[in-house]
Amino acid sequence: MYRPGRHFLQIPGPTNVPDRILRAIDRPTIDHRGPEFAELGKACLEGMKTVYQTRNPVLIYPASGTGGWDAALTNTLSPDDKVLAFDTGQFAALWAKAARNLGLNVDFVESDWRAGIDIGKLGERLGGDRNHEIKAVLVVHSETSTGVANDIPAVRRAIDDAKHPALLMVDTVSSLAAMDYRHDEWGVDVAIGGSQKGLMLPPGLGFNAVSQKALAASKTAKMPRSFFRWDDMLEQNANGFFPYTPATNLLFGLRESLEMLAEEGLPNVFCRHQRFAEATRRAVATWGLEIVPLDAARCSSALTAVLVPDAR
Amino acid sequence: MYRPGRHFLQIPGPTNVPDRILRAIDRPTIDHRGPEFAELGKACLEGMKTVYQTRNPVLIYPASGTGGWDAALTNTLSPDDKVLAFDTGQFAALWAKAARNLGLNVDFVESDWRAGIDIGKLGERLGGDRNHEIKAVLVVHSETSTGVANDIPAVRRAIDDAKHPALLMVDTVSSLAAMDYRHDEWGVDVAIGGSQKGLMLPPGLGFNAVSQKALAASKTAKMPRSFFRWDDMLEQNANGFFPYTPATNLLFGLRESLEMLAEEGLPNVFCRHQRFAEATRRAVATWGLEIVPLDAARCSSALTAVLVPDAR
Amino acid sequence: MYRPGRHFLQIPGPTNVPDRILRAIDRPTIDHRGPEFAELGKACLEGMKTVYQTRNPVLIYPASGTGGWDAALTNTLSPDDKVLAFDTGQFAALWAKAARNLGLNVDFVESDWRAGIDIGKLGERLGGDRNHEIKAVLVVHSETSTGVANDIPAVRRAIDDAKHPALLMVDTVSSLAAMDYRHDEWGVDVAIGGSQKGLMLPPGLGFNAVSQKALAASKTAKMPRSFFRWDDMLEQNANGFFPYTPATNLLFGLRESLEMLAEEGLPNVFCRHQRFAEATRRAVATWGLEIVPLDAARCSSALTAVLVPDAR
Amino acid sequence: MYRPGRHFLQIPGPTNVPDRILRAIDRPTIDHRGPEFAELGKACLEGMKTVYQTRNPVLIYPASGTGGWDAALTNTLSPDDKVLAFDTGQFAALWAKAARNLGLNVDFVESDWRAGIDIGKLGERLGGDRNHEIKAVLVVHSETSTGVANDIPAVRRAIDDAKHPALLMVDTVSSLAAMDYRHDEWGVDVAIGGSQKGLMLPPGLGFNAVSQKALAASKTAKMPRSFFRWDDMLEQNANGFFPYTPATNLLFGLRESLEMLAEEGLPNVFCRHQRFAEATRRAVATWGLEIVPLDAARCSSALTAVLVPDAR
Repeated sequence: MYRPGRHFLQIPGPTNVPDRILRAIDRPTIDHRGPEFAELGKACLEGMKTVYQTRNPVLIYPASGTGGWDAALTNTLSPDDKVLAFDTGQFAALWAKAARNLGLNVDFVESDWRAGIDIGKLGERLGGDRNHEIKAVLVVHSETSTGVANDIPAVRRAIDDAKHPALLMVDTVSSLAAMDYRHDEWGVDVAIGGSQKGLMLPPGLGFNAVSQKALAASKTAKMPRSFFRWDDMLEQNANGFFPYTPATNLLFGLRESLEMLAEEGLPNVFCRHQRFAEATRRAVATWGLEIVPLDAARCSSALTAVLVPDAR
Repeated sequence: MYRPGRHFLQIPGPTNVPDRILRAIDRPTIDHRGPEFAELGKACLEGMKTVYQTRNPVLIYPASGTGGWDAALTNTLSPDDKVLAFDTGQFAALWAKAARNLGLNVDFVESDWRAGIDIGKLGERLGGDRNHEIKAVLVVHSETSTGVANDIPAVRRAIDDAKHPALLMVDTVSSLAAMDYRHDEWGVDVAIGGSQKGLMLPPGLGFNAVSQKALAASKTAKMPRSFFRWDDMLEQNANGFFPYTPATNLLFGLRESLEMLAEEGLPNVFCRHQRFAEATRRAVATWGLEIVPLDAARCSSALTAVLVPDAR
Repeated sequence: MYRPGRHFLQIPGPTNVPDRILRAIDRPTIDHRGPEFAELGKACLEGMKTVYQTRNPVLIYPASGTGGWDAALTNTLSPDDKVLAFDTGQFAALWAKAARNLGLNVDFVESDWRAGIDIGKLGERLGGDRNHEIKAVLVVHSETSTGVANDIPAVRRAIDDAKHPALLMVDTVSSLAAMDYRHDEWGVDVAIGGSQKGLMLPPGLGFNAVSQKALAASKTAKMPRSFFRWDDMLEQNANGFFPYTPATNLLFGLRESLEMLAEEGLPNVFCRHQRFAEATRRAVATWGLEIVPLDAARCSSALTAVLVPDAR
Repeated sequence: MYRPGRHFLQIPGPTNVPDRILRAIDRPTIDHRGPEFAELGKACLEGMKTVYQTRNPVLIYPASGTGGWDAALTNTLSPDDKVLAFDTGQFAALWAKAARNLGLNVDFVESDWRAGIDIGKLGERLGGDRNHEIKAVLVVHSETSTGVANDIPAVRRAIDDAKHPALLMVDTVSSLAAMDYRHDEWGVDVAIGGSQKGLMLPPGLGFNAVSQKALAASKTAKMPRSFFRWDDMLEQNANGFFPYTPATNLLFGLRESLEMLAEEGLPNVFCRHQRFAEATRRAVATWGLEIVPLDAARCSSALTAVLVPDAR
């Protein structure tokens, strides 16, 4: 079928890439060991700290966001370690599956997809874990399959209230650069992200924002890892470089994206998404349909999931 | 410093990307779950078989070639498995390091960087391995640090002569689509590749070409793996899709690259590289300098390494 | 003001340029005297005949459509020649002004902008011109300022009925490749076009489609002309070339545009515009507003002009 | 024939267009009556003054440089006016032909193509013209067919010495932005330029730099003109606009070009061309060949013409 006109993407997956970013990508690849690259690398690495609102390093992988899950888990944990996760949606489930694939022992807590993470249940689980067998808590910030945004500060408080040493890991794939996410202030240990959502890039870059506690854990973590090793990355990143060939052209795009976000201002970007999300929710209500999230305060502003009536 | 003119890359790393490929990449990302993507996926997956000269599947990762090493090793081996590798250059050494990082037991055979792999030594090693503890032999086809091209058919014969069941794994990162590489005919079990050399793409795609024997090994291999799992990939690839978000825009470029290679014809592409490599070697000889490879028959036609005189 | 998102043009002027055409333009300029250019030139010159539905030559100028007016008038007429034009809109008026600027004697007939050309009045004028002083009749096919489409076959019939030898000149700037236009069948002598409307290109190319009668007139026409001369153009066009530097990159775009039009099929393109125009007119009616054209049969399908109520 | 690699242009015609300019052109066309365009228009119009080193207006046409000849002649002269030109090369001859086509009376002085304009002869011609019948002197700055650069200040002095009121018109097509050209200081009345040489753009823009004397002449000049009229242009240009649809995307490129020239600095640009031209001349001498210009001081630094030996 002939489809004249511009392809406009309307899925929860990769977002539309601004022409400005496509043009930034569309240039000759440069030597990833030369001085011009060092500037590019530093701009991307520093810029990602701003987006994550962190003073700690952010790792950039030539991989999709899914690879970021592997990186987060293998760099901080040891075989058979127990991790706590909640069945709050399709991506929470896939992350739990990844953890099991990597040989971790996942306690996957039944949850209501329309409500998101149950903070009370989280507290109970941690309170009951007297021997601190749980090494990490995995939470998805904005669940792409439900449009529910989990309350990360509340998760942090529950862990703190339980005086539990588990690492807090947060999937920010669909929230990053679209919703306010404060890595340091909220006390997250590892955040996983991807390029193809709020950063307005094509897919192909995966991120790990870390904490000092996570870095310390990586010194003793025993899971095998090579491509996703933090240590080699951080050593090279110090000078703007990468231990192996990076996805240079996507980094051209990332630098442009970071400049666009800085020009608009992150708070304005978040406001814009909130306004559009609210407009979408009002439209849905006008159509007489229901959105998935039960609690208006827990709506993601990156995407809106709608319950559609039976086709019958 | 102001540098007018076009950036022209002259390193052994990423090669120059033709404008035609850059323009193919420079278009809106499409839905990776839609019918248009299925066509793109199939074209890329089928085309890669042609480039690898194989009837078996080729896996395409949103990762650099280095990720392909992880994929090859974790999908076919079990923790503590013994692998045989040869110190024939920088990339052979990095691959051995990756194997060690992943918990494998690497027998790293001392070698002459100017000669490449010693087939006799390989035969001895395999002959001496009565219990078949060696599970895989790792060989770099074209060593980017030396310009030596190892003789893959000779490696295969040595394994066959020793009646050894070890898997043969070959790094084709700098040879693929620049030098003749015959996956099926040469009996290779896993070949690792990347997008940024003979395929003329920016970096960001990693490949695994496999054999039926490698696929069988993956059913029982116990190394933990998630992002790089073959099984999930192959299941989705059957319909042109991927288990998680692929690097869609680089796949646009890959499809264009495969079309360009088909237009020129792979044998013509190989001839072109041979001619340019021979021209380079003659120029080096005229300058009174020596190339690294000692055996003219083992020169890579993808790159030429030159011994430079002391600066003193 | 920050405006994220893609610039989308919604004016009657230049139309949105498909990415496919922008990318075709975005490539190195080639030698306009070499064999590769000859192929480009021929593809463009032949393709424009298809779009104009003519077997006669179409001239392509590195100029906007306005330049096409100069070309049409100066190649066929002599100083002080009388031409007949109708005040059917802003572009009809500008064309008449151009003719006066060039030293022609314009009989500019008062008309109703909402009705378009009055065929009866045209017949009267021609019938009263016993000495055949009128050398050309100027008609705008689709008036961009009113959305009225004049009936070119009816104009032709009126000229024929009056047995008048005047040349028929038609401005097809906003109709070409959006509405059915049949140069040969309708007996038009010179048609003027531009690149920035139905051809989906950026502005910068102007066209003249001609008839054998117009070519004959150009042999004796005495108006001074150099840049816009048909004879030098046609001589060079025979081999795919141009007498002076053409707008090569816009020709890259034109070739792509012609391919896109051929892929969709001109009749399908016209249908598409009709459907969208009808949808627009129905929307306007639903809003309780009135469109400019009084006769539904004379609505342009390239654009729709709406009468907006007073702001008071 | 298959030609892998990047197309690199090596002709005296259009020059290589930097990727940065191609990418600037490769974006959606904007509304040429809106505020964003006004900024673009002003940036281009102001920037062109810098390149021409003038405080007077520069006109920008959606036309090739050849169109600039028409514009210069028709805006300042009247039918049958006498103009003085010198047969110093192919482009001088074509310009004289254009003048004749437009109905001017051309005194085309025989000259030595290897020497360029003979200042003595010019003085004689002007001195002999007691009635000031000569209305304009036409000189090509850098002759693309010979590589001779005519001495514009010397031409000006000769006119002044003869106390002759003729307008001085200079073709700067191949010199502009590659060689020092000082419109005001040198007292030129109309300079003609094109986009496809020193400005590094694709062809499709033509320029006229003017003087107050030329503007005054245009008030009384009687040659017919419409598309190329200065008055309508200047009126609209005052606000950054154009009287008819401009070549918007080429203006995107022009703005980028002007920024690149400003970043490098015009004097540095000129130096760069001089250095490359001198290098070229030395190479030609080393090959035992002769360049066309007889006087080393009159070599163009925009191009070098070489006498090639007979093929026999």
